[in-house]
Amino acid sequence: MSKYEHIQQAAYEANMQLPKLGLVLFTFGNVSAADRSLGAFAIKPSGVPYDELSPAKMVIVDFESNIVEGTLRPSSDTKTHALLYKHWENIGGISHTHSMYATAWAQAQRDIPIYGTTHADHNTVDIPCASPMSDEMIGGDYEYETGFQIINCFKEKNLSYEEIQMILVGNHAPFTWGKNAEKAVYNSAVLENIAQMAYLTEHIKADALRLKDALIKKHYERKHGPDSYYGQD
Amino acid sequence: MSKYEHIQQAAYEANMQLPKLGLVLFTFGNVSAADRSLGAFAIKPSGVPYDELSPAKMVIVDFESNIVEGTLRPSSDTKTHALLYKHWENIGGISHTHSMYATAWAQAQRDIPIYGTTHADHNTVDIPCASPMSDEMIGGDYEYETGFQIINCFKEKNLSYEEIQMILVGNHAPFTWGKNAEKAVYNSAVLENIAQMAYLTEHIKADALRLKDALIKKHYERKHGPDSYYGQD
Amino acid sequence: MSKYEHIQQAAYEANMQLPKLGLVLFTFGNVSAADRSLGAFAIKPSGVPYDELSPAKMVIVDFESNIVEGTLRPSSDTKTHALLYKHWENIGGISHTHSMYATAWAQAQRDIPIYGTTHADHNTVDIPCASPMSDEMIGGDYEYETGFQIINCFKEKNLSYEEIQMILVGNHAPFTWGKNAEKAVYNSAVLENIAQMAYLTEHIKADALRLKDALIKKHYERKHGPDSYYGQD
Amino acid sequence: MSKYEHIQQAAYEANMQLPKLGLVLFTFGNVSAADRSLGAFAIKPSGVPYDELSPAKMVIVDFESNIVEGTLRPSSDTKTHALLYKHWENIGGISHTHSMYATAWAQAQRDIPIYGTTHADHNTVDIPCASPMSDEMIGGDYEYETGFQIINCFKEKNLSYEEIQMILVGNHAPFTWGKNAEKAVYNSAVLENIAQMAYLTEHIKADALRLKDALIKKHYERKHGPDSYYGQD
Repeated sequence: MSKYEHIQQAAYEANMQLPKLGLVLFTFGNVSAADRSLGAFAIKPSGVPYDELSPAKMVIVDFESNIVEGTLRPSSDTKTHALLYKHWENIGGISHTHSMYATAWAQAQRDIPIYGTTHADHNTVDIPCASPMSDEMIGGDYEYETGFQIINCFKEKNLSYEEIQMILVGNHAPFTWGKNAEKAVYNSAVLENIAQMAYLTEHIKADALRLKDALIKKHYERKHGPDSYYGQD
Repeated sequence: MSKYEHIQQAAYEANMQLPKLGLVLFTFGNVSAADRSLGAFAIKPSGVPYDELSPAKMVIVDFESNIVEGTLRPSSDTKTHALLYKHWENIGGISHTHSMYATAWAQAQRDIPIYGTTHADHNTVDIPCASPMSDEMIGGDYEYETGFQIINCFKEKNLSYEEIQMILVGNHAPFTWGKNAEKAVYNSAVLENIAQMAYLTEHIKADALRLKDALIKKHYERKHGPDSYYGQD
Repeated sequence: MSKYEHIQQAAYEANMQLPKLGLVLFTFGNVSAADRSLGAFAIKPSGVPYDELSPAKMVIVDFESNIVEGTLRPSSDTKTHALLYKHWENIGGISHTHSMYATAWAQAQRDIPIYGTTHADHNTVDIPCASPMSDEMIGGDYEYETGFQIINCFKEKNLSYEEIQMILVGNHAPFTWGKNAEKAVYNSAVLENIAQMAYLTEHIKADALRLKDALIKKHYERKHGPDSYYGQD
Repeated sequence: MSKYEHIQQAAYEANMQLPKLGLVLFTFGNVSAADRSLGAFAIKPSGVPYDELSPAKMVIVDFESNIVEGTLRPSSDTKTHALLYKHWENIGGISHTHSMYATAWAQAQRDIPIYGTTHADHNTVDIPCASPMSDEMIGGDYEYETGFQIINCFKEKNLSYEEIQMILVGNHAPFTWGKNAEKAVYNSAVLENIAQMAYLTEHIKADALRLKDALIKKHYERKHGPDSYYGQD
């Protein structure tokens, strides 16, 4: 029995949520689950249809992008996952999709404005959209540079990856993360939901106002603050 | 056997309708069912996934927001429910969702104009959108104030809560109610339907006209007037 | 055994198609099936949920709107059905829905322009939208007048009800018909499809051109002309 | 046992994917599967509902549009399929749908701009939209001319049918193809996905920029180039 079995199982279950939640067409998405004590993560193999996946097919990779265990080729986005795990020490899962509305915002290269409490329940700021890479970065180690593009965007905007758990990569698509793979996928679904709502809001009122600060603070804190009273713990 | 079992059952069944009707993502909604003779209502516990719900998990709360029975924490929106039950004596169920189109109208802070007979079958007026709260109200007892925001909006617009059974809370999302929990959820689905139709109508014709008074009156009365002839009773 | 059983069965099956095709929310639709030799039609009872319907619950009504058989109240739109059967001698089924996109066009009071071959496969003209009724007509025998509104629109535009089998009633919703109830429901689904495509077309190109005459003629005739070569008969 | 059984089976399975992928209403689509060594293809019979199809009902046609085997009338679009097989020697499957967003772009007579990496994963250029035919072509052998319209569009734009496997026919709808019928249907779904994303992108940012060349090259090559690293082979 592999010592990686638990993250293979977690990655498998989280990947299987993507089609159930309507977040992927065919194989256009991938989720990984990390175990920090083992210094490795399990990730979906590249291009394998969801209904042919099994926990044992999840590929084990370390944070330097070396394959540790597995016979299949890992997701083509593996280096992006590895880099984020390496630099952001408190995340245990990453999800990447091409979900419809979030990807459209990424293609439009716009941050998603915070228009309501559904957004504020999960984020205190506009969802950031990282700029497309320079041609040099694209021509280099592309997926590796995608990871830096994400990290640099957070640095420039002075955002905390523990608080804001989602980003759009300009021209490309969203990445989300969290304490584990399940939470990362949850965030993918939340992002898609927020992205569609913001789209509709702007088409109902072209000059819709961003949510005011008092409401941003209130909604985020009732779910995430020290005195939060949402949920059962 | 608890004397609250019937409202727990009603609240459970009504809550389970929300995902079936496509009105909620994850746990972003809650329904309650009241028994006026017992001075209490049953409401969804906070943050518990729909597929883990059971009638016994519904929390019993009185109209002053005190927990009467139950070990789980009730919905974070419980005080809003309690206040509406306290002030509006003839409602037996309340539903709160973040359904896509209704929430987008709330985020845009616009009333939903009455554009057709689907709307008029259920409401004689534009669906009201209550203004966002003042910062003082938000900083105070937020969910309690949300209830007042709803009640005050109805007072200002001189609307009857027995006739108009739905509202948008600006920047937030819709609340609906009715004689019981089932009717409240029915109204949530009707509101989402109306909200999408109005959205599309404005995008087919930017200066679409509101429904004329004769049609508003006719459609509402054939369903709800003293000589109504819709349905079987 | 009732001599109306075959039209009750046909009406039942056709009504049950509406939710399967995504054309109705709750009970917002009704289909009828006529037998000309019996001078009567079977129609959905008013306000009964689709999952409680059965063939025996279909109400039998004659072309003067008199109930011939059945204990339930027929659809509130029954008089509209009766009038169309009375005046248009070659139709055997009628379907009425509040399907999303078709209803939005009706609310916008616009004909649906013929933008492509999907439309032309079924209609040679823009889908007509009848004007809303005068206040006098609304205050009179409303559902009866709705039927006249439809018939008069076809007269004014010089359309054949045998060729064009669908209409929007301004501010209200679509009606479709055909040789039998199954075809009427088929037309409801086609209309919704066309309505959504036309909506999207105008939002992809604001000044999209109507289909040119040669293509209108070609596509309609390959499905419906004397030398048609679509289908198996 | 027919020597065409394998392409009948392939065509059957590919046709049955269309409703599962949400790409067709009723019978508005058809897929064919060719065997070059036999000089023939199997195609859906015209107007037969998907749930009544079986492999044996697929009609065998040669590349000159002659029926080789089968008792049913083949799809009304058969001549378009035959012409494409005849002129494009390396395709083994063709799919034609009236999928919602792709058809709306065709009705608007616009190429679909390349706005992001989802598009670039499959195509290096805007999805071409062939001009509607001249009245002479329409009045002639229509479906045959549709094939020429497609081939001529690729010639004019200097595109390779092996690289770009999808097109919009102006005013009509999309055609896609590939090495086999399964790939052709895959491309129909990808096109619909891209078409919706591009629609949304333009409505999020009216002057959205086309993807820059470096990203187009990178994404296409990582999936299709000589050093591709997507998938398992």
